Amino acid sequence: MTVKVAINGYGTIGKRVADAVTLQDDMTIVGVTKTRPTYEAWRAVDNGFKFFAADREFIPRFEDAGLSVEGTLDELLDEADVVVDCTPGKHGANYLEKYKAAGVSSMYQGGEKADLCDVSFNAYINYKETMGQTNVRVVSCNTTGLCRTLYPLYRDVGIVNTIATMIRRSADPWDSKKGPINAIEPVLKVPSHHGPDVQSVVPDLPIQTIAVKVPTTIMHLHTVTVELKEEISAERVKEMWSEYRRIRFVEGGKGIKSTAQIMELAKDLQRSRSDMFEIAVWSDGVFTVGKQLFYCQAIHQEADVVPENIDCIRAMFELESDPQVSIDKTDKSLGIGI
Amino acid sequence: MTVKVAINGYGTIGKRVADAVTLQDDMTIVGVTKTRPTYEAWRAVDNGFKFFAADREFIPRFEDAGLSVEGTLDELLDEADVVVDCTPGKHGANYLEKYKAAGVSSMYQGGEKADLCDVSFNAYINYKETMGQTNVRVVSCNTTGLCRTLYPLYRDVGIVNTIATMIRRSADPWDSKKGPINAIEPVLKVPSHHGPDVQSVVPDLPIQTIAVKVPTTIMHLHTVTVELKEEISAERVKEMWSEYRRIRFVEGGKGIKSTAQIMELAKDLQRSRSDMFEIAVWSDGVFTVGKQLFYCQAIHQEADVVPENIDCIRAMFELESDPQVSIDKTDKSLGIGI
Amino acid sequence: MTVKVAINGYGTIGKRVADAVTLQDDMTIVGVTKTRPTYEAWRAVDNGFKFFAADREFIPRFEDAGLSVEGTLDELLDEADVVVDCTPGKHGANYLEKYKAAGVSSMYQGGEKADLCDVSFNAYINYKETMGQTNVRVVSCNTTGLCRTLYPLYRDVGIVNTIATMIRRSADPWDSKKGPINAIEPVLKVPSHHGPDVQSVVPDLPIQTIAVKVPTTIMHLHTVTVELKEEISAERVKEMWSEYRRIRFVEGGKGIKSTAQIMELAKDLQRSRSDMFEIAVWSDGVFTVGKQLFYCQAIHQEADVVPENIDCIRAMFELESDPQVSIDKTDKSLGIGI
Amino acid sequence: MTVKVAINGYGTIGKRVADAVTLQDDMTIVGVTKTRPTYEAWRAVDNGFKFFAADREFIPRFEDAGLSVEGTLDELLDEADVVVDCTPGKHGANYLEKYKAAGVSSMYQGGEKADLCDVSFNAYINYKETMGQTNVRVVSCNTTGLCRTLYPLYRDVGIVNTIATMIRRSADPWDSKKGPINAIEPVLKVPSHHGPDVQSVVPDLPIQTIAVKVPTTIMHLHTVTVELKEEISAERVKEMWSEYRRIRFVEGGKGIKSTAQIMELAKDLQRSRSDMFEIAVWSDGVFTVGKQLFYCQAIHQEADVVPENIDCIRAMFELESDPQVSIDKTDKSLGIGI
Repeated sequence: MTVKVAINGYGTIGKRVADAVTLQDDMTIVGVTKTRPTYEAWRAVDNGFKFFAADREFIPRFEDAGLSVEGTLDELLDEADVVVDCTPGKHGANYLEKYKAAGVSSMYQGGEKADLCDVSFNAYINYKETMGQTNVRVVSCNTTGLCRTLYPLYRDVGIVNTIATMIRRSADPWDSKKGPINAIEPVLKVPSHHGPDVQSVVPDLPIQTIAVKVPTTIMHLHTVTVELKEEISAERVKEMWSEYRRIRFVEGGKGIKSTAQIMELAKDLQRSRSDMFEIAVWSDGVFTVGKQLFYCQAIHQEADVVPENIDCIRAMFELESDPQVSIDKTDKSLGIGI
Repeated sequence: MTVKVAINGYGTIGKRVADAVTLQDDMTIVGVTKTRPTYEAWRAVDNGFKFFAADREFIPRFEDAGLSVEGTLDELLDEADVVVDCTPGKHGANYLEKYKAAGVSSMYQGGEKADLCDVSFNAYINYKETMGQTNVRVVSCNTTGLCRTLYPLYRDVGIVNTIATMIRRSADPWDSKKGPINAIEPVLKVPSHHGPDVQSVVPDLPIQTIAVKVPTTIMHLHTVTVELKEEISAERVKEMWSEYRRIRFVEGGKGIKSTAQIMELAKDLQRSRSDMFEIAVWSDGVFTVGKQLFYCQAIHQEADVVPENIDCIRAMFELESDPQVSIDKTDKSLGIGI
Repeated sequence: MTVKVAINGYGTIGKRVADAVTLQDDMTIVGVTKTRPTYEAWRAVDNGFKFFAADREFIPRFEDAGLSVEGTLDELLDEADVVVDCTPGKHGANYLEKYKAAGVSSMYQGGEKADLCDVSFNAYINYKETMGQTNVRVVSCNTTGLCRTLYPLYRDVGIVNTIATMIRRSADPWDSKKGPINAIEPVLKVPSHHGPDVQSVVPDLPIQTIAVKVPTTIMHLHTVTVELKEEISAERVKEMWSEYRRIRFVEGGKGIKSTAQIMELAKDLQRSRSDMFEIAVWSDGVFTVGKQLFYCQAIHQEADVVPENIDCIRAMFELESDPQVSIDKTDKSLGIGI
Repeated sequence: MTVKVAINGYGTIGKRVADAVTLQDDMTIVGVTKTRPTYEAWRAVDNGFKFFAADREFIPRFEDAGLSVEGTLDELLDEADVVVDCTPGKHGANYLEKYKAAGVSSMYQGGEKADLCDVSFNAYINYKETMGQTNVRVVSCNTTGLCRTLYPLYRDVGIVNTIATMIRRSADPWDSKKGPINAIEPVLKVPSHHGPDVQSVVPDLPIQTIAVKVPTTIMHLHTVTVELKEEISAERVKEMWSEYRRIRFVEGGKGIKSTAQIMELAKDLQRSRSDMFEIAVWSDGVFTVGKQLFYCQAIHQEADVVPENIDCIRAMFELESDPQVSIDKTDKSLGIGI
């Protein structure tokens, strides 16, 4: 079976998922939508994707710009098995009924609330529970990052408590409107929503999070403190993580001092769009004090959910029953592990 | 008695301490030093401070620039009762012997190691222990900030553990050399030195800290999680803090969303150099979950230690025996509390 | 006569003009308005200004926040001789009729179009033409900066052409919403509106401008190339400028390498809100090649128009007939020239 | 003939030239050097390049890090026909004698002074003069950018004068040390060296430049004003430029408002390391006023010289005698023109 995938919202995440789908042999893109004829819209067409207006009302914009559309989202849904909703945060909920009415399965990104779907997905954690589901949310970049490093600790050692500070990039690299230019802005709702969001994937994982926005565009960074159920060494923790290809160790000692050099490494790895799909953990920044574990991880907000979206499609349509087989296949296609 | 104060290093901290001393009736500036004839040197002279070269070797630089000096540090020390060392971090240790040989008391800033002096000073915490001492370190801006908010909790409720993430401004506002421009850089030594530094003031306060540098110049921000010995409400915590003038509540609800608006408030308060001497705590960002307390505080790195330096001089020379009298006097002179 | 001044819009410019008016002996603030009960509103009240809602509809907001108002703008206008409109750009035009109907004189800032008023004001250039006028626009920070340095050249040497690139700060220091964080954004309308705006003050001054936004908050910087009618030396140009107190020389050789150190100098000068009211010109960055003159100047966007507003009031109400007397008085009150 | 290319300095430019050489059928990389075992060194090895220490003294560093080297630069030079010097600015001059002694041809980057070599190279302008040369400098990213857009105007219309403001990114994206974080810094040597550097390629092109550093990492931006010998329309200018593949039009009207979206476009084009090899000119930002032409162009400082380096090798070794054939070949290999 080749799953026919529609992308609603060919933007930061949508265009990446579209490219990643194209690299697979068991799924294909039947079309993508946008609301505006920006350069990204033109690129979608140049890339050979069938291009649709997200709504009938937007057609004149495209016509005025000389960009011809194949039709609207409604017509695209007719051709699809699943729609990957990549609309801006909280817009996905508005589309749910339309997707259902069209009889397609639907996937959402982490900007949607957890209760929109029955499953909040992470490939390492609940692939099997996702098999056969028709409405699934792939959790956000930050939640994905926390899940990847915390879950092995939770499952194999046990966690008493987690305190994570999410130091968030304030805008994506392409976004020249949003600031701040020179300020730090705390999210005053403390603890932040990220803790409960992790629990939408791993219900019993104890975690409290605080979020802060800083003037950078390239990556989020988490400082994480975990009180483990037993005392284990930092080396043992790193061994556990080394079994997961989607966690990548970086070393300050090799000149990777900040998020800047991680993004440079992604360029050097010749990744599509210079993406870092893995969570970057500083191997020389993992420490334990008794049962307390401290570490820092960096999250490429545009990229880490991309392989998750691919595995999610595979799980929903039961294209593979073994999670690791799906993960291996996805990782190979994206160059993860090189 | 009027204590005669020398400033070694008329830079970011030195010039502020010099101005603050000038506002007091029980101490006076006998001279300041610099190594280079920059605009700050010219301002020192314009402000009427006697100006000395930090070393004989620097005299030609000043002469070439047309800035006449009264002599060198050695000659300045002859006229002083105490020297406030405001040289760059870890340079103070090199001067210790010279200060001792000159028979003057000496004060250091938080860039020096704790073991340089017998006392690491905070006005609220160990003023009395500092009375009569001759070599004292005023702790750093970050440590001062943590001490101010944690000490009342430690003393009155008890602390089981503290986890603080120090999100540090990477350079001061005047510093156009240092970056990063667009990156987040963790300090890979985890836990960071800030925890032990708090313990140089309050030995038994349990605390672990992680430090991260971000591309901003104006303030540090701390996210703090405290496990208290008993469950108390956020309101009660704020009541406790409200007794301390050097903790200032700010409100997101009144438009103070980030460090940017705190610095604007300092301007509006018509503070000298637009300084915020208080630790700014978001009153609508204090929360408790059981015995866990969460809050965010911002630190004006150039300013919060200035009143501490004044009180420290007063303690060392026993100009006031009641800490609160000294604090009140200092605060009034600097406009703290308005 | 003491001119009664109302401020409509107690924000970045409004609060500065209010403070500057308060420092004069021939004018007084009768009240200020705002639309929202932010910290700036509370500061206005704490500073002793009579506080009014900008419109009746905003009163509930203030009441809910516990901030009591004296009434609305209408009632404030009843008590005023002149209203200084400091509302956001292009809002002033909407108020013009209201001001006229209330029978008060009105002043506008540079965000309004030039044709709103008969005179676009600069104290050095057209003070006398402004005497007795009832609706006057004080030109923008950038235009004020260009007028100050170009006018002496225009008048005493003659200008064939001017090419200026306006490298603009993208947001004010207090503004944590606007970006970009990491991009340069040209204003694609080339030449930009700044050239014609200079000509609203000096009609025959030949000038073309290009504007670009960069990720900084503290100052604009202009690179200016002037083709003069005759060849004169850079030294002669500097002599001409040195007669104007509102042009301030700064020196790279004394460590003022960038806008960062200029703002530090303003702090060191103990200016209100650390403002630099003068245009800063790098004295070691003025060069001539034949008849071509090159220089760089920095503009503190929040401050340079403040003394202009004061002189404008004095001109409109004919409080002084000699421009230089008014300028001297204003400058002395604000510390300009120290 | 397959030219054997050594890269001395596998950093920002070196690694890009190495990859670009690898894509050609008439040249090959025989080895690369570095001074330190950073992540980039490891990537060189992982990419299959023979890896050499830049000097014997650095070998222990590599050994300590577990990175085995093939030998030193001296041994690498023995195997090469040409060395592309990509050492930091002004270091190339120190190597010149060593390269000559080894009997290899040498190429330098724009950080070296023009008089180091007989030719300062741009593929469109002096390919033929470069044929058979043995020491050639490829001009800097900024000079390359100015040459590409000015040369057609110079040749086909004639230029009376050019005024360009170079608004420079202060640090590369990977560089987390350099600032400023929040300042604009003019280069006080006005006019800047960029004008004469353009004249090292096109001796009679009249140009004056002013340079300013701003807090961004991704691209330089030039605002350019050209006084042409005859009046031609902006449309005609764009037609002239459209014949050059290494000039790429971008449109504000399609959402490319700033350098941020240009870099996003490079990602979307699936370029190696997300590089923009072309000079980006805003097509909706080109204007003429009489004989004056105004435009804005953005320069990806890491990338625009890469195709020039390839063409330079081809010219020096006379691999192609027709410049356009070389340019077409290079462009095709790098995806320029898609």
